[in-house]
Amino acid sequence: MRMVDIIAKKRDGSDLSKEEIHFVIEGYTNGQIPDYQMSAFLMSVFFRGMSAKETAEMTMAMVQSGDQIDLSGIEGVKVDKHSTGGVGDTTTLVLAPLVAALGIPVAKMSGRGLGHTGGTIDKLEAVQGFHVEISEQQFIELVNRNKIAVVGQSGNLTPADKKIYSLRDVTATVNSIPLIASSIMSKKIAAGADAIVLDVKVGAGAFMKQLDDARELANAMMEIGNQVGRKTLAVISNMEQPLGYAVGNALEVKEAIETLQGKGPEDLHELCLVLGSKMVVLAGKANSEEEARSMLEEVIDNGKALQAFKQFLSAQGGDPSVVDDVQKLPKAKYQIPVKATESGYVTGIVADEIGVAAMLLGAGRATKESEIDLSVGIVLHKKIGNAVEVGEAIATIYSNTEEVSEVINRISKAYDFSIDKPSPMPLIYNL
Amino acid sequence: MRMVDIIAKKRDGSDLSKEEIHFVIEGYTNGQIPDYQMSAFLMSVFFRGMSAKETAEMTMAMVQSGDQIDLSGIEGVKVDKHSTGGVGDTTTLVLAPLVAALGIPVAKMSGRGLGHTGGTIDKLEAVQGFHVEISEQQFIELVNRNKIAVVGQSGNLTPADKKIYSLRDVTATVNSIPLIASSIMSKKIAAGADAIVLDVKVGAGAFMKQLDDARELANAMMEIGNQVGRKTLAVISNMEQPLGYAVGNALEVKEAIETLQGKGPEDLHELCLVLGSKMVVLAGKANSEEEARSMLEEVIDNGKALQAFKQFLSAQGGDPSVVDDVQKLPKAKYQIPVKATESGYVTGIVADEIGVAAMLLGAGRATKESEIDLSVGIVLHKKIGNAVEVGEAIATIYSNTEEVSEVINRISKAYDFSIDKPSPMPLIYNL
Repeated sequence: MRMVDIIAKKRDGSDLSKEEIHFVIEGYTNGQIPDYQMSAFLMSVFFRGMSAKETAEMTMAMVQSGDQIDLSGIEGVKVDKHSTGGVGDTTTLVLAPLVAALGIPVAKMSGRGLGHTGGTIDKLEAVQGFHVEISEQQFIELVNRNKIAVVGQSGNLTPADKKIYSLRDVTATVNSIPLIASSIMSKKIAAGADAIVLDVKVGAGAFMKQLDDARELANAMMEIGNQVGRKTLAVISNMEQPLGYAVGNALEVKEAIETLQGKGPEDLHELCLVLGSKMVVLAGKANSEEEARSMLEEVIDNGKALQAFKQFLSAQGGDPSVVDDVQKLPKAKYQIPVKATESGYVTGIVADEIGVAAMLLGAGRATKESEIDLSVGIVLHKKIGNAVEVGEAIATIYSNTEEVSEVINRISKAYDFSIDKPSPMPLIYNL
Repeated sequence: MRMVDIIAKKRDGSDLSKEEIHFVIEGYTNGQIPDYQMSAFLMSVFFRGMSAKETAEMTMAMVQSGDQIDLSGIEGVKVDKHSTGGVGDTTTLVLAPLVAALGIPVAKMSGRGLGHTGGTIDKLEAVQGFHVEISEQQFIELVNRNKIAVVGQSGNLTPADKKIYSLRDVTATVNSIPLIASSIMSKKIAAGADAIVLDVKVGAGAFMKQLDDARELANAMMEIGNQVGRKTLAVISNMEQPLGYAVGNALEVKEAIETLQGKGPEDLHELCLVLGSKMVVLAGKANSEEEARSMLEEVIDNGKALQAFKQFLSAQGGDPSVVDDVQKLPKAKYQIPVKATESGYVTGIVADEIGVAAMLLGAGRATKESEIDLSVGIVLHKKIGNAVEVGEAIATIYSNTEEVSEVINRISKAYDFSIDKPSPMPLIYNL
């Protein structure tokens, strides 16, 4: 087999065989295929696409390029959730204890944040004492005992994906559905998921700007899951504005606790119930999403979800009393309001911009080596559809420095206003 | 400017600016743009194409990437001819003295052959004593005095083209009209041509298999020429079979001499008159191709063309008496007939295959380092439309070894027969 012939085959619109796809992924991972051939191949995929079968084969070739986490020591169906990247997306912090409270094992391998999107581990570390430095053995024991544990990423997972992703970034081949879908799914599968629930974000602040593209991505990922025997369901959710109100590590933990208490923001609460219902169904604990939803509502109402969160924090060294007294979370020195410079109805809040504003405060990492400040962030007061008067506070900045003019500018710029009240937007779109 | 943005722009179908194109070509030539970005760019060009303006800019950026030959010391319009590669294509040997005999300067920079296509210098070296090791100064003096000289390639011409061509070869981006057109035109322009006549071959044995593709290429090259102020005309000629009868260095010189005497193969004679007429018009020596054709026929008839060839050979150390006695050319030891294994009419002769057969005899170089044998080659006896009986000789092999079974096999395989007489094929197609 010669790489140049495989490039030409894809370039001319033919489907590649399983052997050809494995030849490409293995050869590129081990360095036998040079970058310049891989980038020509990726551009051909950009133009010609890939069939569901090809995409599934590529995903599995990427999974097999490195280590795979063995979660067979954990009883039950391990259901993982993935979001295509949101700002102020606190769903994982809510969903993990929520489904664990129903006896569904949550064996979460998570990462730290980079850029303007937060990482689950960073957020959890806002709880005094919490840590993810546990052995694989401990991790599996914890999940079996408490149904929930979080560990940092370890091992050499999907090196093919890492190498391909770096190349895509500099060769204008990022925006290709089969490449995005296989990248996401390979990581989830290598991390040991039996079943996967996907939250595909769509809107101005999301990677997918158009609903059609989001649908295509969601369907491509579900097809991969079905082809490789990992049941996969997807939700398309609105990202025309950040989810919930809080952006920043401690601020999001507080919001997650409120949501587990049934007092959280409506959109966050609803999205957690929708995603959670699918997780419960995939785990085989309910026959329908309606039944699953009632079960989830019950564990919020009776406090079992909150209890699962406490137990989880405590098992990994965290102080569970923050759940009852959120004042114990790290607090920023200054609270600075951002005032509206015009009147009208909010029609959109560009989530990326809010994320970058929070990063500038120190809530996120500009580079992998950056230190982050767990206490800082932004709390929005106005969301789409709300009426605003000039001078009214649209958001509050939580900062440890007083000089936040650039942050204020970014937040102001992120908001769009109109004199007409916008028609309500769905939180969840049909697939 | 960032290369990744330029790749994305072309990928999305937009036209690139002059600055962007120069950024790409200069950056790639000097190593600032890596191969993997260039190959993604080339694949985008493959899919999206380039406008005439873009292609012209890219051609000039490639010309400017290296040395440019200064032919301003030569009086008159320097018209160059280029063929997209043929087997047994002896036109240069005929055309150069033919137009020189009309006072048109032929300042030919030529190369040696590689693979199954012959090089003009190799062919000329079949004449005892002929050499191209002359200085630039001598070259210009010779052209001014005799209107004709040939020199080997020197200097660092179009390094961008060399680098891009190597990359295209391994990334399945060879077959792109703007990339082919700019590659050819940049070399001609860097070599100092004021005007260019192109012979685009089409057919089973040519790079362009389809007439539409050949037309597209011819038009793309003419557009480049017109955009950059080098008048360019093109001819599309048939390559369903080799041109003339002879393939091999000394054998082709003999055929060229016969053609200059008006006794050559009909197709070679006709193509030389068609290409020559365009050269004469571009040089401003005739007002129409009809007038030019009469002038060319006259210098064949009155012996001036042959005289120009003799003068040219002699000026560069060659023995001009070969023209009157072709027996003085290198002669192979054996003449071995290739006999028809079936009866019928010849419907096609795959030129590549005949070229490879001649290379196997030693007429061409398998690698740049190979020594070639100027005496060997193949003379065809049957061409398209000819009737053949089993056992009749379709060709003669001129060889210095007796074991030529593989060569016989290749030649036999190159011939296609049918029981029906094929309808005559045009030698020249409309643009």
